[in-house]
Amino acid sequence: MSIMRRFSFNHATAKFWDQREAVEACARTGSGIGLWREPVQEMGLEASAKLVKDAGVQVTSLCRAGFFTDPTQAAIDDNRKAIDEAAELGAPTLVLVSGGIPEGGTIDSAREGVKEALSVLAPYAGERGVTLSIEPLHPMFASDRCVVTTINEALDLAAPFPAGQVGVVVDTYHIWWDPQVWQGIARAGREGRIASFQFADWVTPLPAGVLTGRGQLGDGCVDFKRYLAEVDATGFTGPIEVELFNDALWARPGAEVFEETRAAFARVLE
Amino acid sequence: MSIMRRFSFNHATAKFWDQREAVEACARTGSGIGLWREPVQEMGLEASAKLVKDAGVQVTSLCRAGFFTDPTQAAIDDNRKAIDEAAELGAPTLVLVSGGIPEGGTIDSAREGVKEALSVLAPYAGERGVTLSIEPLHPMFASDRCVVTTINEALDLAAPFPAGQVGVVVDTYHIWWDPQVWQGIARAGREGRIASFQFADWVTPLPAGVLTGRGQLGDGCVDFKRYLAEVDATGFTGPIEVELFNDALWARPGAEVFEETRAAFARVLE
Repeated sequence: MSIMRRFSFNHATAKFWDQREAVEACARTGSGIGLWREPVQEMGLEASAKLVKDAGVQVTSLCRAGFFTDPTQAAIDDNRKAIDEAAELGAPTLVLVSGGIPEGGTIDSAREGVKEALSVLAPYAGERGVTLSIEPLHPMFASDRCVVTTINEALDLAAPFPAGQVGVVVDTYHIWWDPQVWQGIARAGREGRIASFQFADWVTPLPAGVLTGRGQLGDGCVDFKRYLAEVDATGFTGPIEVELFNDALWARPGAEVFEETRAAFARVLE
Repeated sequence: MSIMRRFSFNHATAKFWDQREAVEACARTGSGIGLWREPVQEMGLEASAKLVKDAGVQVTSLCRAGFFTDPTQAAIDDNRKAIDEAAELGAPTLVLVSGGIPEGGTIDSAREGVKEALSVLAPYAGERGVTLSIEPLHPMFASDRCVVTTINEALDLAAPFPAGQVGVVVDTYHIWWDPQVWQGIARAGREGRIASFQFADWVTPLPAGVLTGRGQLGDGCVDFKRYLAEVDATGFTGPIEVELFNDALWARPGAEVFEETRAAFARVLE
């Protein structure tokens, strides 16, 4: 089976590309798609669900909820809404970025907030057939974006819940530096928690703002073949999303970025 | 005892300040000093050693050697030279930043290079009464500057050697995000490996280039009181160096930065 059968294009890689065109490109190439809430809401939830269904495109994830380190009612409500959206779109998983340190808090208190939010949201997600994917982000985002920083930390947060309710994202960009990464991936597989598998490359120098420095596959130091081998060794056979936040890519036509990304994906896994 | 008795000013905090003036300021205030190889070499090793000795200033560390992920003979020779310099200056410890991923290597192979280099350098350092301090750097530097990213990883690297030969740096800037940080500090203390304790604050947004974003104490999210309590709870009673790489500080007069840094140190530990 060609590895391209597992390719999924995360819409954020061509952030400003029309959602309909992105879905059509995925349909033509047999690719999956990772959708984002904002374009989905712009088109309308029902219309978006119909679009992917009619096109026969697998939605591999919905991005993104979370931001509940201060688990206010508003934050919980928005996450419930995101779970409903994922269910309606047929997305097996909703990606959660935890959020940073709330005003007056510490990273430890923020992590307690995440536990609290998950305890409320996990059963709700489970009832709707959606697995919550806790995404550890690179530690350079720990204060302002995501206090969850390693795969083992994400697994510890997931542990109190059934694997069908809470899993983790294995995103090469965020975890490639971790001395425990191979052990963490094996553990995630053993515990049945790999709910999303994403590729992006690590390239330096980082751009100002650091958010949009994710490199095209092959441009950096991530050994994608090894990641694929380690993840597959756990028995995982799911899709692999390519999600690149990159200003230079965002400035280019989506169709071109889509083709380049498919080619890079094939090349790094050759 | 006033906490100021443990204050040490790392010369890099006022990078362009004359070494003699920095040492004199430390002498006047009873502070220690963390020296850097480049200014030491500029003044001359013997003259620098005489300067601190005559001033009665404790050299708390010499920065910086390492960069041996590709442990060539030249890299090893330079590290031996740095060890000799530390011994001559009376510095109890030499800080090691491992270096990034060598051309054609992976982070795993780079980490093997570090082990190899340490096995050659540790006995050499031990014979000269210098402890090598492995410094884990923030993972945003993992590809191009330091493949050692966590306190536990540094402790694992130190483990094969006597604690008198190889210890670790506890630098708040680099490790504050780590979910294992409190456990790691306790372990470092238990294993007698805390060879250097450094303060800098984590502030966002990071500047372009990310190297010079270390915040003045109190400007960011690091809980310095907690760090001091956790480190002291292990029985550590050594100096605390403030080391800030910060373009805005570097642009100002050294004497002013020195006073501000002492005041900030006192304030965050009040």
